[in-house]
Amino acid sequence: MIDFPYLEDLCIRTDSKIIMLVVDGLGGLPHPDTGKSELETARTPNLDALAGRSVCGLTTPVLPGITPGSGPGHMALFGYDPVKFLVGRGVLEALGIGLELGPNTVAARGNFCTVDGEGKLTDRRAGRIKTVESAPLVELLDTIDIPGVSVEVHPVQDYRFVLVLRGDGLSANIPDTDPQVVGGPPRTAVAAELTSERTARFANAFIDAARGLLGSRDRANMVLLRGFSTEPEWPEFGRSYNLNPAAIAAYPMYRGLARLAGMKIIPTGADFDAELKTLADSYSDHDYFFLHYKPADGAGEDGDFDAKVARLEELDARIPAVIDMNSDVLVVAGDHSTPAIMEAHSWHPVPLMINSRLSRGQGSDAFDERACRLGALGAIPATNLMLLALAHAGKLAKFGA
Amino acid sequence: MIDFPYLEDLCIRTDSKIIMLVVDGLGGLPHPDTGKSELETARTPNLDALAGRSVCGLTTPVLPGITPGSGPGHMALFGYDPVKFLVGRGVLEALGIGLELGPNTVAARGNFCTVDGEGKLTDRRAGRIKTVESAPLVELLDTIDIPGVSVEVHPVQDYRFVLVLRGDGLSANIPDTDPQVVGGPPRTAVAAELTSERTARFANAFIDAARGLLGSRDRANMVLLRGFSTEPEWPEFGRSYNLNPAAIAAYPMYRGLARLAGMKIIPTGADFDAELKTLADSYSDHDYFFLHYKPADGAGEDGDFDAKVARLEELDARIPAVIDMNSDVLVVAGDHSTPAIMEAHSWHPVPLMINSRLSRGQGSDAFDERACRLGALGAIPATNLMLLALAHAGKLAKFGA
Repeated sequence: MIDFPYLEDLCIRTDSKIIMLVVDGLGGLPHPDTGKSELETARTPNLDALAGRSVCGLTTPVLPGITPGSGPGHMALFGYDPVKFLVGRGVLEALGIGLELGPNTVAARGNFCTVDGEGKLTDRRAGRIKTVESAPLVELLDTIDIPGVSVEVHPVQDYRFVLVLRGDGLSANIPDTDPQVVGGPPRTAVAAELTSERTARFANAFIDAARGLLGSRDRANMVLLRGFSTEPEWPEFGRSYNLNPAAIAAYPMYRGLARLAGMKIIPTGADFDAELKTLADSYSDHDYFFLHYKPADGAGEDGDFDAKVARLEELDARIPAVIDMNSDVLVVAGDHSTPAIMEAHSWHPVPLMINSRLSRGQGSDAFDERACRLGALGAIPATNLMLLALAHAGKLAKFGA
Repeated sequence: MIDFPYLEDLCIRTDSKIIMLVVDGLGGLPHPDTGKSELETARTPNLDALAGRSVCGLTTPVLPGITPGSGPGHMALFGYDPVKFLVGRGVLEALGIGLELGPNTVAARGNFCTVDGEGKLTDRRAGRIKTVESAPLVELLDTIDIPGVSVEVHPVQDYRFVLVLRGDGLSANIPDTDPQVVGGPPRTAVAAELTSERTARFANAFIDAARGLLGSRDRANMVLLRGFSTEPEWPEFGRSYNLNPAAIAAYPMYRGLARLAGMKIIPTGADFDAELKTLADSYSDHDYFFLHYKPADGAGEDGDFDAKVARLEELDARIPAVIDMNSDVLVVAGDHSTPAIMEAHSWHPVPLMINSRLSRGQGSDAFDERACRLGALGAIPATNLMLLALAHAGKLAKFGA
């Protein structure tokens, strides 16, 4: 949680409401032909007008130069130091497909891989087989029974699956069985500490059974396990900030991250319009809403500059509906940048605006990287955003007499 | 090293190359007559054009208001927290004259001073005697033999020299013998901990012998010792960042600082043109180059505004040769500001630019304090520069899933 020891003393319960709209992959980079970023290219009259009466700035998710995954990007916006509050890969993959893990549960990410006749790795991803080929293999693996532990195997996509072990006395301190290079055999699961020995035995029993079930195939005849992890127990967002928070997110992973922060997850539909309806329906029940907009990130990851522009324009058309909620504070932020020219997440600082009755007259001409760079908030660590949101909502008392 | 525990996990070895050009004393302050700083006054078309296609900002070497010496200024650019990784004065002085110290070696900075008939200090710098007067005295001191330790005395400049003690069981925890005020006798060397007692005895034996050799003189008839220190063992730059780094610096002190970071030192000539030739000759052998440009700092320290402008223009004329190397990332940074109107190092943030294929469209109109202040990088701690350089070179993997 935010490294400020008096936080809980200062957070006041009030009637004011905060909406934090997180635009996944919001930030971008200029297109080489135009010199303008996705946000600068998009026609976003509603976001720009809002920026004019908001206070703008940039957030750095982790550190300058560090590119965050979805976990660190969101936890930082929630005020959790993303270096200390790091989600394991197995848990994140489970969250991404909507699994609830809870205590006494270890999750690992699985890859189908291919080994030769001597058991040596020839392809760590089994030719990136498609879901149509992997789905029946996942069903096969899900039949594996190991005495003393409950075993679940869930499909993710293509060559990826999630292994979930449930039972008493499990521990996740087990390095990856993926050696990262081909030519040698997969590693066995090894306990990195005494308490993980039992779990490592279960993992090896699973691997042996998987080899038995898959071994006659030409490819995808073996499995690799990575990111053994358990759901962490973190400080509760609501308790830390004296809020009654809710998360509205169409994509499972973001619901999962909000659940790790102890937010109430409100069921919603498959897209942002459904999220907006959910927001309106549940608006009287909470004083903080994490509202997630996903499509911009995907277009950036695809390297499709025009599509990212279009997704931002589609968001802009829906901004009036968010404004109409009349929240005391409306934050528009991003978990990280996803410049289309990089086809990936990036480290670049992310545009931010905070709208409240206190932000008028401090605004920027537009909501984009360049305008926000010159905004009154300046460049801040993303972990400081929650303090600013609370302050603008009148939810933070004076520190010291 | 950079306070980010996952650094070594994220640093990827790639073919991309980084050149970090460090312009010593780069930053300045406006001339009172013109309102323009040295960089703003200088005609620097090449640096300005480069800034137009780079991403610009400012670095703070240590903390706002803290003026760094050469050691902290450079170590921060290399990503070493300059507060934790502080070079002792004796070691720094030894590095400055090109000495290699290694283990089992203690260095102290020496001043010739003047004492009266009762042994009381009358001048801590012996009238700032010139090298022509001090050189023979240094030769005399270098004849001193002390059983159990090897004693070397090396000339620095004017009233300054370096004392080097080599032998087993030495320890440098010894306060200065310089009392900082005149009127009393020089202090004796006192061990601040048990392990330093033997070294303190050697130091006092040296002081006694020096008094014997110099005592008949009117001035420069005694010595003061400061900054007892040993060469520190620090994390290796190359290992920490997964780089194969090289340093090219005409001045010994900067080679010495790079050696403390474990960089390979490439022999070079006496000026920047020689450095550029060395860069071209060794370019295929390394993936990171620390390239040092010294003259701007000296002009600033001399308080010669016009000379600093001229030194910056001379640098600008050589920028095309650096650009011609076609590195994937070209950083132009400074270790600290040296405003001519202050005739000294200063705490002012230092202009920075990073050029890569990812920095187009984000540039600034010029490379100076004012333009960089509005640059897309914003103001960052100098210790974060290496992360940004690695990121722009594609050498940093994503943090967290």
